[in-house]
Amino acid sequence: MSNYQQIVLASRPQGVVSVNNFRLESVPLPALRDGEVLVRNHYLSLDPYMRMRMEDVKSYAAPQAIDEVMIGGTAGEVVESRNPHFAAGDKVVGMLGWTEMAVSDGVMLKKVDTTHIPLSAYLGVVGMPGMTAWYGLTKIIAPKAGDTIAVSAASGAVGTVVGQLAKLRGCRVIGIAGGKEKCDYVVNELGFDACVDYKGGNLFKDVKAAAPNGIDGLFENVGGVVMDAVLARMNPFGRIALCGLISGYDGEPMPIHNTRVILSMRLMMQGFIISEHMDLWPQGLSEIGALVATGKLKFRESVADGLAAAPEAFLGLLRGKNFGKQLVKLV
Amino acid sequence: MSNYQQIVLASRPQGVVSVNNFRLESVPLPALRDGEVLVRNHYLSLDPYMRMRMEDVKSYAAPQAIDEVMIGGTAGEVVESRNPHFAAGDKVVGMLGWTEMAVSDGVMLKKVDTTHIPLSAYLGVVGMPGMTAWYGLTKIIAPKAGDTIAVSAASGAVGTVVGQLAKLRGCRVIGIAGGKEKCDYVVNELGFDACVDYKGGNLFKDVKAAAPNGIDGLFENVGGVVMDAVLARMNPFGRIALCGLISGYDGEPMPIHNTRVILSMRLMMQGFIISEHMDLWPQGLSEIGALVATGKLKFRESVADGLAAAPEAFLGLLRGKNFGKQLVKLV
Repeated sequence: MSNYQQIVLASRPQGVVSVNNFRLESVPLPALRDGEVLVRNHYLSLDPYMRMRMEDVKSYAAPQAIDEVMIGGTAGEVVESRNPHFAAGDKVVGMLGWTEMAVSDGVMLKKVDTTHIPLSAYLGVVGMPGMTAWYGLTKIIAPKAGDTIAVSAASGAVGTVVGQLAKLRGCRVIGIAGGKEKCDYVVNELGFDACVDYKGGNLFKDVKAAAPNGIDGLFENVGGVVMDAVLARMNPFGRIALCGLISGYDGEPMPIHNTRVILSMRLMMQGFIISEHMDLWPQGLSEIGALVATGKLKFRESVADGLAAAPEAFLGLLRGKNFGKQLVKLV
Repeated sequence: MSNYQQIVLASRPQGVVSVNNFRLESVPLPALRDGEVLVRNHYLSLDPYMRMRMEDVKSYAAPQAIDEVMIGGTAGEVVESRNPHFAAGDKVVGMLGWTEMAVSDGVMLKKVDTTHIPLSAYLGVVGMPGMTAWYGLTKIIAPKAGDTIAVSAASGAVGTVVGQLAKLRGCRVIGIAGGKEKCDYVVNELGFDACVDYKGGNLFKDVKAAAPNGIDGLFENVGGVVMDAVLARMNPFGRIALCGLISGYDGEPMPIHNTRVILSMRLMMQGFIISEHMDLWPQGLSEIGALVATGKLKFRESVADGLAAAPEAFLGLLRGKNFGKQLVKLV
């Protein structure tokens, strides 16, 4: 293999993102220099935050550059190493982007143990989404047993972990998801107490019915009207972990109308990004890793096949077509 | 005087509040029982929160009841006492409502010292609005010297104190107010670094120009587009003390459009109500009281004359017609 494929950002979306904003390229394999490793990616992680990075706006990170490989988390295997910390065959996770192969200096590459946990899970439940769930729930919402916790995008990579961790802490858990199949999954498979189908036509009424004692903590992934419906049921001194606003990423941002509740119920809302809390990663990973290895924390993946399928899968993720963690399988 | 006047809530506003929602009544003076005091109010406090209490919605307090005396802070004088803790002539503040006279059991009545501080100031700068400013600034925003702090309704009872306290802490202070006169006042008289006239037609551009290094803390009294303009300039890890949303109190609530900034800049927003932090009142009062008594903290009052003027003055307050603390003088 002297060439490999990668996907670059071809242009910034004007409104809704399309597959035409991406370009598949074939590029020659570079020679390794001292200190470098060559990685073959087995899985790409697709995540909602990528949509924000496609815009040229002030944010927590520089925008994704045009004509550069799309950013993103990856899980793969070292195929060649001139770095003493890595050997061929090592399983590694990193941020190598939408590419089949990549050269790394090893600094941001992490070896992982796949004895009890499959490689793909390091992009999901024991990776960034899982840690995001753990941090937002335990450090921002900080629930007590008996609290009612709501989580939007409940069947997604983050939401599934939020709800299961909250159940383990003795909370009543309300999911919000799109469609009966997703709602059935989080209630019947993951043990959520209730799930509201936001496509069901009675969002506000259904949230009220699902949370008869109000809501003490909200893990927000969606924003817009879904967030407004939960805000309407928040109890005094409720906490909101603001993790995502996916309903407004692709096109116009969605306003929050129920702002008065933040005041009248004295709510605390905290926006956060897990990469700024790496000091707590070992603590979170030790809890989640043990739960996953012993089967007490379940997870689900939607897997697209082959690099060329990544743009379409990403568009699907933004529309909620995924079920659990959205991955692209390359090998 | 065997009768006195009071104002009750006659009906709930449908949309915008009008003077017809209130009713002036003349009622007979009751005889005092043991333990009671009779108070003649000298000043009524008019505050934006009263508008929310006029609605029959779930909030931090029960709605104002129909046909009952309008709630509100008062400052006055004991005219007769059958309570050993009070004597005729004592100056007292309480929550006696929109009434010339009231009987109290003394429990919620507080004697105040008017030697160095005028009685009316106990409803403003050294009262609830001043403590609100102190708490939100010092306990939620917690500014460091050099931070840029923005405050909306900058020339109001709360905003004037927020800005002056922030200046004393070495911050750059940006006010937002309606009209040149108010902006000139907070800059020239109170020492704010800049003030944006939200009626000037260039709100977003003017906020940007006033805060070239971004904004680290926002003390929000207004909401709506004023809040959106400040959100657009928030720096990472900024703090928002959500004190009021007056732009949406009288009629339709105003949405926040710039919610994505709360996420991308990892902002913390906390709604609060000062009456839940009475334990800190002595600490705040000791700072503010000393500053007021020595003339280092300035304040301004808009004073309506006579009980019958209260509804019109309250409507004006909701439209920003007041300049500083809005009072009604009864004696």
